[in-house]
Amino acid sequence: MDEEREKMQEEELREIIDASDSKRLSEYFDNQEPVDFAQTVSLIEDEDELRHLLSILDDDELASLMEESEDRMRLRIARLLNDRRLLVAFEYMQKDDIVDMLGDFPIGRRKKVINLMKADDRRVIQKLLDYPEDSAGGLMTTEYIALKETLSIEKALKKIQEIGPRTEVIETIYVIDDRRRLVGCVDLRVLLSEPKDTLLGNIMEENPITVYPETDQEETAQIVSKYDLMSLPVVSRTNQILGIITVDDIIDVIVDEYDADMLQMAGVSGEESLDTTLGESIRFRLPWLLVNLATAFLASFVVKMFQSTIEQVVALSAIMTIISGMGGNAGSQTMSILVRQLAQGEITLKRGLKAFRKEMELSIINGSVNGFVTGVIVVFMYHNFYLGIITLAAMIGNMIVSGIFGFLVPIILHRLKADPAVASSIFVTTATDVLGFFIFLGLAKLFLPVLI
Amino acid sequence: MDEEREKMQEEELREIIDASDSKRLSEYFDNQEPVDFAQTVSLIEDEDELRHLLSILDDDELASLMEESEDRMRLRIARLLNDRRLLVAFEYMQKDDIVDMLGDFPIGRRKKVINLMKADDRRVIQKLLDYPEDSAGGLMTTEYIALKETLSIEKALKKIQEIGPRTEVIETIYVIDDRRRLVGCVDLRVLLSEPKDTLLGNIMEENPITVYPETDQEETAQIVSKYDLMSLPVVSRTNQILGIITVDDIIDVIVDEYDADMLQMAGVSGEESLDTTLGESIRFRLPWLLVNLATAFLASFVVKMFQSTIEQVVALSAIMTIISGMGGNAGSQTMSILVRQLAQGEITLKRGLKAFRKEMELSIINGSVNGFVTGVIVVFMYHNFYLGIITLAAMIGNMIVSGIFGFLVPIILHRLKADPAVASSIFVTTATDVLGFFIFLGLAKLFLPVLI
Repeated sequence: MDEEREKMQEEELREIIDASDSKRLSEYFDNQEPVDFAQTVSLIEDEDELRHLLSILDDDELASLMEESEDRMRLRIARLLNDRRLLVAFEYMQKDDIVDMLGDFPIGRRKKVINLMKADDRRVIQKLLDYPEDSAGGLMTTEYIALKETLSIEKALKKIQEIGPRTEVIETIYVIDDRRRLVGCVDLRVLLSEPKDTLLGNIMEENPITVYPETDQEETAQIVSKYDLMSLPVVSRTNQILGIITVDDIIDVIVDEYDADMLQMAGVSGEESLDTTLGESIRFRLPWLLVNLATAFLASFVVKMFQSTIEQVVALSAIMTIISGMGGNAGSQTMSILVRQLAQGEITLKRGLKAFRKEMELSIINGSVNGFVTGVIVVFMYHNFYLGIITLAAMIGNMIVSGIFGFLVPIILHRLKADPAVASSIFVTTATDVLGFFIFLGLAKLFLPVLI
Repeated sequence: MDEEREKMQEEELREIIDASDSKRLSEYFDNQEPVDFAQTVSLIEDEDELRHLLSILDDDELASLMEESEDRMRLRIARLLNDRRLLVAFEYMQKDDIVDMLGDFPIGRRKKVINLMKADDRRVIQKLLDYPEDSAGGLMTTEYIALKETLSIEKALKKIQEIGPRTEVIETIYVIDDRRRLVGCVDLRVLLSEPKDTLLGNIMEENPITVYPETDQEETAQIVSKYDLMSLPVVSRTNQILGIITVDDIIDVIVDEYDADMLQMAGVSGEESLDTTLGESIRFRLPWLLVNLATAFLASFVVKMFQSTIEQVVALSAIMTIISGMGGNAGSQTMSILVRQLAQGEITLKRGLKAFRKEMELSIINGSVNGFVTGVIVVFMYHNFYLGIITLAAMIGNMIVSGIFGFLVPIILHRLKADPAVASSIFVTTATDVLGFFIFLGLAKLFLPVLI
């Protein structure tokens, strides 16, 4: 159904473009959410058709289209516009969106466009561009309301009427002293309900939560999420307000980080999607496979070490993959708990030790149950009691290995400032494969006389 | 550092409790964010100490503590309070938080507490409790501003001053007709800047985005995220406004779903954390391990089928684990791309076919490169050219298997209304293990004469 509606929207848009009907286009634009319009436009693959569309869009509609489009689409649009038209559209856009777009421009075009801006805008944009894209400074916008603490509510309300329409958030008014230092914030509800001659300084909440522009975006998102904020001010080291971050940008950060984590855990770049070209996909995925190949060979060498044992008891070759595989699964379980906990904050030593002890107990219990089931089946399949005992022992041993590595690898990577979500799995599975084979085949070699 | 500060906070709180100093407690409470206070309180493990703390907390502080505490802590607190005190604290709480708490209560206590409420409150709470916790109805609150379309701005502002302090969102005013049907919304900015005698109906934006109370929370979160909403109204089938969902609750949904996905992918319950007891952890993790054990035996049977071949060429036992392992890795890559894409929406047939073709090409290329590297090493290690060729062929074959299953399993699970993020991996790795062994050992058996 959704797909059908999308198709109809697309067809109508193409009709409008063919007819060069600017008025009907405006109606079409007004009749839907900007982000849906941008989505339909992104279906236009022909550059000439897109250029034609842009030429019949009003400036504010063009600005909205650019704000709501994906990065790749924004660049396509920018390439089809001359500098003058681009600057006119920028007038209707939030500063943080302009900066996002310029950040993706080729350096030459970026400089050219910035140089054509009004001096005021140029200074602000230039400054915002200096912050890394994934920092609080890169997320913030300069469209907020900051009023002096000595202002009365009556005057404040007048100011808000003036500035309000150009800001992103209106519910929180930031209060500054005469050196632009952030001293508090006022909820608009309070402003509306107090006597008109009260001074902002008297009704503000002091010491609002802030971040520095260089704060990482993940940490910023955690703060917004923990304190349920609608907006978060960004301040300099001397506590001057530089901008604010709004909650909608924070949602984007959380969703992006989530997607990137999911993909990177599986050895895929966070940038890959279903539509990535073959060449890019190879570049993204092949290196990870080659790293895995190296670790697979490590495990393979261990098996080769015990070749003479396997030659004498060939059943070992069928059982060993169960031991190593189960270790890998148990290790992933422990690891995922640790990764989640680390994402939520540090783990205290006391709490960590208690949890580690529990993991060890769990490893022995889970290893015993799985080892017992496997051992019994092995005894029946291969008619050798001792093979079953060795299987049980090896399963417990490898589960302990998986518990230790699943617990410690994420903590060590976190301490080394690496992302445990991304890198843990390769170390844990290498350990459970290599040591799993080693424990099982080693035990088999030791007790070879009773196995033959 | 953070840990140290936490410790100091905890010690100060214990001192205050020991001294039964209600005034100092209020100061202590005011000097930090409510969520930080709740975090420190959660460190108190002794029930008597906690009861003592609750008895010296003011009612509004108690309400804030309950709002900001985790589920488990809320229940502990509720158990220590009598019904009367609980009801007094509820007066200070948002309806959606009360409902969340009551939802976790034992059924007897819940009924008792609800029966003690005022008739109005009881009706609202009763209704909210009827919606599943993970639906839009379960997320919504009834503290919003809805005004008639025939109201003038002047009168509207008066109403807002009255109701404002008791609502969760003030930036958006919802506009209703005389049958409480939602007909539009007004941004407070617009309200402040238009002439005072304008009617709300004349300045409202029509057809705001809405959800039904039974809409799933994940879908609700997607809508808020896509349209950058600060709040989202929930309406009945006849378009009457029932409540609103605020963006802070949406962030919680996104983070929770993320954590649950991460854990469930690894075979751990979304409810497990570092502090889960041993017994619960066993209950959460052992079943998954046993399911995996069954699939591991499947792969093991395949190996057993080829035991006579392995007996003659024991090198096969060391190489086969490389083939099956690499198939698993490549399958995870494809699978994770598909899972992410499905989470963002349906995949059209045209786009899917194109992507599938690419995955097949990618499988052949990645299989060739990895197979070639592996094959060359195998030739040098085991001095047998044909073993290298078989390794190459099996690697390509298993990569194709991984591409097919990594692509189709998530799509099929999605069609069957199962969560692809949770269940895909077990099917994909079973396929790549079983078929990986089968292809490699089968080829070896076929070409046995040249291998010996």
